[in-house]
This record gives sequence, C-alpha cells and structure tokens, in this order.
Amino acid sequence: MNKESVLIVVAGPSGVGKGTVCAKLFDDLDSLDFSVSATTRNPREGEVDGVNYFFVSHDKFNNMIHNSEFLEYANVFDNKYGTPKDYVLKKLASGKDVLLEIDVQGAVMVMESCPSAIFIFILPPSIDDQKTRLINRGTESEEQLALRISKAKEEIKYAEKFDYVVVNDSIDIAANEIKSIIIAEKCKRVRNKKVIEKLIK
Amino acid sequence: MNKESVLIVVAGPSGVGKGTVCAKLFDDLDSLDFSVSATTRNPREGEVDGVNYFFVSHDKFNNMIHNSEFLEYANVFDNKYGTPKDYVLKKLASGKDVLLEIDVQGAVMVMESCPSAIFIFILPPSIDDQKTRLINRGTESEEQLALRISKAKEEIKYAEKFDYVVVNDSIDIAANEIKSIIIAEKCKRVRNKKVIEKLIK
Repeated sequence: MNKESVLIVVAGPSGVGKGTVCAKLFDDLDSLDFSVSATTRNPREGEVDGVNYFFVSHDKFNNMIHNSEFLEYANVFDNKYGTPKDYVLKKLASGKDVLLEIDVQGAVMVMESCPSAIFIFILPPSIDDQKTRLINRGTESEEQLALRISKAKEEIKYAEKFDYVVVNDSIDIAANEIKSIIIAEKCKRVRNKKVIEKLIK
Repeated sequence: MNKESVLIVVAGPSGVGKGTVCAKLFDDLDSLDFSVSATTRNPREGEVDGVNYFFVSHDKFNNMIHNSEFLEYANVFDNKYGTPKDYVLKKLASGKDVLLEIDVQGAVMVMESCPSAIFIFILPPSIDDQKTRLINRGTESEEQLALRISKAKEEIKYAEKFDYVVVNDSIDIAANEIKSIIIAEKCKRVRNKKVIEKLIK
C-alpha cells in the first residue's frame, strides 16, 4: 500500500533532547529520512557535501533566500543554516517521509512555507528538569543558564501553534509517540483518497 | 502525565476482520477498555450482565432511546443493541480510553451523538479479498454473498466520513496502526492544553 509521504517537523527549546529522540526514530522507521541543511560555514574534517550539509557560499545562500528556495533558515553567529525546499520535495516525491529537527523559530517559518507539514513540539517534563539538563551539560555560566531558561519558557509558548506535543520524560516513550504520530498521520483519510476510490470502483 | 481520554470508534464492512484486529489491541494498550452494549436479547449461557452485555427489557430499551441515552443503537432481527452514553462517559472520566467496535451505520450515529470521538474505518485490501474472506466463512449462499459484497461496497463509501482508514492486509500491521492512532491522538496539542499551561506558568 503506497501511502502519501509526510513532512514531519520536530522542534522544541534547546536542551530538550530532540536530537536524541529523533535519532532513535530512524532505527524503527524505514520510510524515514533526515533532511540535509545548507550552510555557509566551512566543512569540518570528515564532513561530506550533500551528506552532512550542502556547503554553499554566502552569495549562493543569499540568492537562495531571495528565490524563496528555503523552507526555513536562520543565522547562527556568523553563518547561515537553511532547509532547501527542493531537496525536501524530491525526497517526498520519491516516497520517503522527511523529518526536520529544527529550532522553534525555524518550525514557525515552515508553518508559513509548508503548512501541510506535521508539527510536533517536544516539551520538557518540567522547567526544573530542563534546568537540570542544562546544568548537567556543564557548558553554561549562571547568567547564560538564566537566559536559556527564560528563552525556553518563551519558546514553549509557541507549542500552542503545533499539531502535537510530546513530553520528553523518557526517550523511548517520546520516540514511540513521534513514531505513532507519523504512522497515524499516514492513515488519515485525507491522505488515502486513492485507496478508497480504488475499492469503490 | 495524565493525558485526556479518548473515545475511539472502529467500524468497517462485515467480514473485514475488525473484531480480530481490535482484540489484538488490548494486549498492548493498558489504558484501553471495550464498551459494554445494552441489548434486549436474552443472556446466553455463561454471559454476565454488565460484563458481556447489559441485558434490558424492550420497554427499558425504548425508554433509553426516548431519553437519548444511547451513542448509537440498532435493530438486529428481533432484538436491539445499543451503546449506553452514560457508561462510556463514566469510563472516559475515570481516565480510560474506550473503544467501540461497531458497524458502519452505528459509527455514523456516533458522529452525531459524539463528534469529538475518533473515527477509524477498516478497509479490506481489495473487494476480491473481502469476497474470499466471506466465502471462507462458509456460512453464506451464493445469493447472500452477492448481497454482502454489494453492501460492503456501499458501506465503504462511508469511509469518506471517517478520520482515518486502516487497511486490514495484515492483522498485526492493522492493529499497530490503530494503536498508533490512539497514541497520536492523545499527543494532540488540543488535548494537552493543561500540560503546556503548567510549563509556562
């Protein structure tokens, strides 16, 4: 049964564990593919163009913005990162489901550029828990930590714009919930019109 | 995390295997409960009132119809069968998810009486497959068989009114899809408003 492919956007505040949760998904779902981002930063050792990133010049990146070739993009310090629309659409057309694991601002941009995508927000079990995670990273000063927590609280407000919320209390449960959302979305009647038509004929 | 309970309605043409698929679900989902129907027919040996059915008189059943106490009901030969609204609501309030495995006409009635329920239509992989299943039952005459197939085709048209469709090609896959739909629906943002509010506060 060929089900329509879906674009899944997974976002959440930084430190919520979205990378770990999404990595687990790929063990279970053969149909799933990560997107590859374009970036203006230089490749690090071992990174392959077209696999880890599409490495492009600042000029090329700006041109792509100008031509609306990104589903979303962002500035991170002196570099730009973005999701090429064309790459994602080709993957979807080939029958693959595509997962974008991005930050909240990026997800909000995708809501504009591709409203038919499925938007999942990963929540921390509590703000205290989120704080502990960030402390355990050991990379933040007291001041940075306070800033990040206040930013996380602001970002969580955007959960109101998402289709689904998944609480990352247990990585296994959270990954299973996202997997279930993908399977369920592919069973939606609106995505299976041809299946019904074929039976009625 | 206390997620809001959901009412799931699983329907499909007769012989599509919805009973077998639903039975498998209960092995996996602790939160799930079957509904108990009310009926005017007499209890068979070993059947317990309130467990297998609520056995009620014709007068009582008619009163319940009159008082809109059913989510759906139907006549089957000389007897009536129905899903008591009160029983289902109490189950939901206690935190259980409730599954109704009913025929297509019953599901359409629940769309009126409880539009917030989740409606899943089980489809046969093909009309030929559906025919083979009915032949293998060995209980139908040639004429009955033709009638059932034509009825199935008519019923499949109602799939257009459902939220999800699940093709019963493999019982395991179909059961897993329904399980995924239930998990996903419980992750819907609209069912987790309190979770988000608590974090933002």
